[in-house]
Amino acid sequence: MGQREFDEIASLFRPLTFGADEALDLLDDAALVRQVPGQDLVVTKDAIVQGVHALATEGPAALAQRLLRVNLSDLAAKGATPYAALLAVAWPESWTARDRAAFAAGLGEDLQRYGVLLLGGDTVSTPGPFQASLTLLGRVPAGRMVRRSGGRSGQVLLVSGTIGDGWLGLQAARGDGDFPPEDRVWLAGRYHRPDPRTDLSVQIRTECSAAADVSDGLLADAGHVALASELGCTIALDQMPLSAPARRWLDRQPDRTKALLSLASGGDDYEVVAAADAAAAQRLTRAVTAPGRGWTALGVLTDTPGLAADVDGRRVPVERTGWSHLG
Amino acid sequence: MGQREFDEIASLFRPLTFGADEALDLLDDAALVRQVPGQDLVVTKDAIVQGVHALATEGPAALAQRLLRVNLSDLAAKGATPYAALLAVAWPESWTARDRAAFAAGLGEDLQRYGVLLLGGDTVSTPGPFQASLTLLGRVPAGRMVRRSGGRSGQVLLVSGTIGDGWLGLQAARGDGDFPPEDRVWLAGRYHRPDPRTDLSVQIRTECSAAADVSDGLLADAGHVALASELGCTIALDQMPLSAPARRWLDRQPDRTKALLSLASGGDDYEVVAAADAAAAQRLTRAVTAPGRGWTALGVLTDTPGLAADVDGRRVPVERTGWSHLG
Repeated sequence: MGQREFDEIASLFRPLTFGADEALDLLDDAALVRQVPGQDLVVTKDAIVQGVHALATEGPAALAQRLLRVNLSDLAAKGATPYAALLAVAWPESWTARDRAAFAAGLGEDLQRYGVLLLGGDTVSTPGPFQASLTLLGRVPAGRMVRRSGGRSGQVLLVSGTIGDGWLGLQAARGDGDFPPEDRVWLAGRYHRPDPRTDLSVQIRTECSAAADVSDGLLADAGHVALASELGCTIALDQMPLSAPARRWLDRQPDRTKALLSLASGGDDYEVVAAADAAAAQRLTRAVTAPGRGWTALGVLTDTPGLAADVDGRRVPVERTGWSHLG
Repeated sequence: MGQREFDEIASLFRPLTFGADEALDLLDDAALVRQVPGQDLVVTKDAIVQGVHALATEGPAALAQRLLRVNLSDLAAKGATPYAALLAVAWPESWTARDRAAFAAGLGEDLQRYGVLLLGGDTVSTPGPFQASLTLLGRVPAGRMVRRSGGRSGQVLLVSGTIGDGWLGLQAARGDGDFPPEDRVWLAGRYHRPDPRTDLSVQIRTECSAAADVSDGLLADAGHVALASELGCTIALDQMPLSAPARRWLDRQPDRTKALLSLASGGDDYEVVAAADAAAAQRLTRAVTAPGRGWTALGVLTDTPGLAADVDGRRVPVERTGWSHLG
């Protein structure tokens, strides 16, 4: 480790350990994760490459926050409470000390927001684009991690929040698509700052028997749950929860079914799709929440393999390969 | 996740879970790490970039094995037993399906060799060079992780194996330096395939109160242990354990002190430097091992801050910045 790496770790990243002794001040070869009696650890790891998983125009702080948040979304869907992170970051030659500091500051802001401490990791240089991976550790009561495979036939499929904003938001952020100016700003914000549903982890591990985060698209991820559970599913696309900007966009589309299918397969929602028994589903959908943040029942797990989608009670063909390769 | 990523994860990486149910077939959002009563978890994460941390000529299998082994070295120095890994890999556009398969095969071979199972991770594409990070989890009896900071004044400093082969091996692998052909081949092999001292983890956690892996160079890493322990250290460079090829190289150098300093600060050794009480140090140095694999006592932790190096009983100046920035 050279002088610059050493100093930068001390100045940029050590504060992000929030003084936790298990991080060993980021000075040791490894970090310690103590056992907590009665709890299992849940571990996830996602990587991003600037220009591939994030727009090339996205700034250092936004990249840091996207990286943390996509991992938090994975953890939330498992019913786990976030605990700590390890970061590997490859600085491109074009990044200045100020860019690196902005990355660390953006990360630190979000670590604090979500109650995660930095335990360790690695910083390297790359002649290529910025890229980074984050390993996120969370905790669940022993044996209570919610898997994709826990669905049972007849259970209700629910989705949290609103669907389609991420996909519309990517278009909005790129300057593509047809949006009123306020909707463009709002949707682009939804794309730029995914809002992982860490607030739902307790509900998920209490009420749901299977869950996945919605990152590939609602249809694909509902399909993953059904397939992992060795079941099929039916989803009512017209029941899909939409934000006001997404609803306005939908109203402008000539082909409503095609537009609903696009919203349901666009991805980048970072909501949760889950399976629950009828009584639990009712508790979830009736829980009081902020607008656009609650649970919506929109489907059912079935014994018939594959994915079926309905619009206003009529079956519609699903051609999306994001799903079909699993069907 | 697209079709190719899905299929490749299934074909290349799922076998590397060795059927462990906590990997959830690499199909879920996260992996499960069950608590083991009486054990703590130790976590480390290192990244490599082709052409930066590994020669641009290094093949996919060698890159995979280097990535795993540098992490295993960190874990061994903490006295931890390896358990599981998460991998984030960025495939460059120039890599063929065959290259990716060679990477997975090389990784799988070493995972099996060291008893590590793949728990999860992420595969992405990059327009830049190959890079990857590995998060490695290990286990130690609760409270027994060996830190850098556990050294006590008067303790013996020991190093495992031989020192300097990695630094000489890098020159040998590049075609630089002056080596007899057989020594060049042997040393290049030492560089290409680091040999992490997982075999020493039980000794380390039983006999040593502080330890670090030797990756930055013996002087730097011994210095890290001293500094973290709020002590100084003195090292007898003439006591440094050398392989036969390194000894022959040393004999060819006009300035023996300068050459010893180079070997002691070259890095990439992936051995362990540790501090132990005199009786424990004696047990370690007297233990029966294969040639070039045992422990050598070569220094002492002192109350005087900083690093001192002796050659044949005479103090020599240490100018190496790898150390000095910590001094």
